[in-house]
Amino acid sequence: MDYKKIIRSVPDFPKPGINFKDITTLVGNADALKTSCTDMSEKFRDRKIDAVAGIESRGFIFGSMIAVELGVGFIPVRKPGKLPAKTISASYELEYGQNVLHMHTDAVAKGQRILIVDDLLATGGTLRATCDLVEQLGGIVCGIAVVAELTFLSGRDKLKSYDLVSLVTYDEE
Amino acid sequence: MDYKKIIRSVPDFPKPGINFKDITTLVGNADALKTSCTDMSEKFRDRKIDAVAGIESRGFIFGSMIAVELGVGFIPVRKPGKLPAKTISASYELEYGQNVLHMHTDAVAKGQRILIVDDLLATGGTLRATCDLVEQLGGIVCGIAVVAELTFLSGRDKLKSYDLVSLVTYDEE
Repeated sequence: MDYKKIIRSVPDFPKPGINFKDITTLVGNADALKTSCTDMSEKFRDRKIDAVAGIESRGFIFGSMIAVELGVGFIPVRKPGKLPAKTISASYELEYGQNVLHMHTDAVAKGQRILIVDDLLATGGTLRATCDLVEQLGGIVCGIAVVAELTFLSGRDKLKSYDLVSLVTYDEE
Repeated sequence: MDYKKIIRSVPDFPKPGINFKDITTLVGNADALKTSCTDMSEKFRDRKIDAVAGIESRGFIFGSMIAVELGVGFIPVRKPGKLPAKTISASYELEYGQNVLHMHTDAVAKGQRILIVDDLLATGGTLRATCDLVEQLGGIVCGIAVVAELTFLSGRDKLKSYDLVSLVTYDEE
């Protein structure tokens, strides 16, 4: 499926000069929704995945579908103050300041094999922090699946030791 | 499936006196994840649903799965500043102040039949605002599906004209 034709580019969002990749046109298309989920799952079908971790908020859309596709549970990775039980956290750098992600301490058991899912790989900060969360709990990151990868931001460099699949790549803004 | 046994109650979250219904234990359970999705879809399978709208953030988890289950597209309903293209908005009252939800103007076409999905029905404000968004665009709200309904907050009273399904009800905090 030609996902690039289905993903909309919105100029100057969230700020001037950014050409935002809008996946709402993909998820709004029944065929693309289903096929993207199958395509992101495919490589990991025989990897004995125990659970899928999805990153708030758009990672929830794809992560839960892929969890059902693979027949496993889903783990939400969230911003601070959202998860009600005991959590661990990992932070990552932004252009100015930093962000923090949380995961419930009982979300991953030692030795569990986790697939991490998000919509977008940009600079790789959120995905790298999510790998850290899984590994803090003794889990094994078996792979990372994203819809769109912005290769000009080189996020993949932060994730070299992981098996990373993207459905579509963008070489320039 | 006895969802009440699987949903965890976390006392005093997000503030003292609230007994928070934590669906992360449900979505982390592969059987419960799949079955909740099938059970929420069941009643709407023959209703010619055109799309499922899910409310940020936990509504994304269930909404996207149900969209795939019903073979339709998914529409994200989001907090302000998150959707990149042109949006409409609806506000709802909180205990102190108000919140606003947005939907892309091209998310729903006139006459389309929409199923709205969220994890929780509490006071009904977010679901009522989402019905307003769908109707502002000329869509038809064919139903509402939630995992948990807090009946002691009477949210259903705000949604009387809609067909509302909840998997589990809580009669007291």
